[in-house]
Amino acid sequence: MSDIIIFYDIPSVNGTGWSPNTWKTRLALNFKGVPYKTVWVEYPDIEALSKEIGAAPTGVKGDGSPSYTLPTIYDPKTKKVISDSQDIAEYLDATYPSGPTLFPKGTLALQIAFQEAFTTTALGSLFPPLLQESITILNEKSAVYFRQTREATYGKKLEEFSPYGAGRNEHWAKVRAGFSTVAGWIKKSGGVFVLGDSPSYADLSVAAFLVWVRSVRGADSADYKAIQAWDDGFWGTYLALLDKYTKPDA
Amino acid sequence: MSDIIIFYDIPSVNGTGWSPNTWKTRLALNFKGVPYKTVWVEYPDIEALSKEIGAAPTGVKGDGSPSYTLPTIYDPKTKKVISDSQDIAEYLDATYPSGPTLFPKGTLALQIAFQEAFTTTALGSLFPPLLQESITILNEKSAVYFRQTREATYGKKLEEFSPYGAGRNEHWAKVRAGFSTVAGWIKKSGGVFVLGDSPSYADLSVAAFLVWVRSVRGADSADYKAIQAWDDGFWGTYLALLDKYTKPDA
Repeated sequence: MSDIIIFYDIPSVNGTGWSPNTWKTRLALNFKGVPYKTVWVEYPDIEALSKEIGAAPTGVKGDGSPSYTLPTIYDPKTKKVISDSQDIAEYLDATYPSGPTLFPKGTLALQIAFQEAFTTTALGSLFPPLLQESITILNEKSAVYFRQTREATYGKKLEEFSPYGAGRNEHWAKVRAGFSTVAGWIKKSGGVFVLGDSPSYADLSVAAFLVWVRSVRGADSADYKAIQAWDDGFWGTYLALLDKYTKPDA
Repeated sequence: MSDIIIFYDIPSVNGTGWSPNTWKTRLALNFKGVPYKTVWVEYPDIEALSKEIGAAPTGVKGDGSPSYTLPTIYDPKTKKVISDSQDIAEYLDATYPSGPTLFPKGTLALQIAFQEAFTTTALGSLFPPLLQESITILNEKSAVYFRQTREATYGKKLEEFSPYGAGRNEHWAKVRAGFSTVAGWIKKSGGVFVLGDSPSYADLSVAAFLVWVRSVRGADSADYKAIQAWDDGFWGTYLALLDKYTKPDA
């Protein structure tokens, strides 16, 4: 029996994680330098796995029953199972206080609000033009499940969120405007990261979405290259500096 | 000639400021302990005043022409005129670095994002049920101007945002839910304020809206007493601790 953290993640066909939310946890684990081992879980298996290991539900389904999501970690050191990327990040700082800190003293409330602001400002527009392509890098089993559940929730096909054609340019223009606003906030720090010269969890939570876009569209795609060049290269530099935290477990 | 800052504010019939945005600046000036003198400006006079003193426009009107807003300050020490509450707050920290700091090192970007998150989470729902009553505490000249310009912008009467009736309870329930979310963020700091034990500009920008509600509805109103009791008294305690920064200039 190993005594390192088990990190339950959703696989993509690229051999890396698929979900931006699980990317947040991988980035946080690597940032903290806490050893861990990945266990890959396909979408339809998340609920059974969560119940088996005693993970708490993270939300409620449309029918009122509990819903289970990844990321989840199990830490043999404390015998705790934690779900929800934010709760995991707070747990890691509390349990492994040595080394780099995800939430430097006094910044936890602000970092939670930052993620909310990032979500409303940039992410609402990011999903439509990527949703239909994102499932092409899921394994078949997860792709079928993801399509069925999301289309039932939203009442429309994934392809209808941003149909191919001129409208997509408008969608990408909105994404760019949102990220430009966020870049404006970050630059106010006087450094390249939200808190200035050192990255914190707020940066990792933004980077998780850039990694997701790169993974969905491809590092050599026109879309991803465009993002790297937005705001005078801000996002290209940003992710280049944080990319070391995307590495798989050793 | 006095050499203290001139603070241009919009008067209410209560003898205090009317606008939540100018309240942010009064709270910030008092927090910093920087001496200032208030000059009251009615809404229809803001544009002429701004041009006269050389204040920069803070936005663009529907017809594309520049728009001018308060708060604005003139600092005879530096001979600078600054508009926009955020720009004023940053100016005050930069120009008067001794004493309390509105944006402690590393927190500026996060505090800007916090205000954005507070706006989308709580303020969108706060205006509808207060808009029609808010102009009853403006002087006649400003009330007429405010009604004309806002009704032209939104294409409906101020009374239509939250008509009296059962729908208002739903509006207030949304306000309460939004403030409860924000209280949840702040509590994460481990103290009573966003950064923990000491207030910062993020707190003053929230308090500005509580002061506005108190001013519009009255300190003894059922609405304001309800807000003070929300989240186990969180907001009552919060504003009680910050209320010393609402005092008028000496």
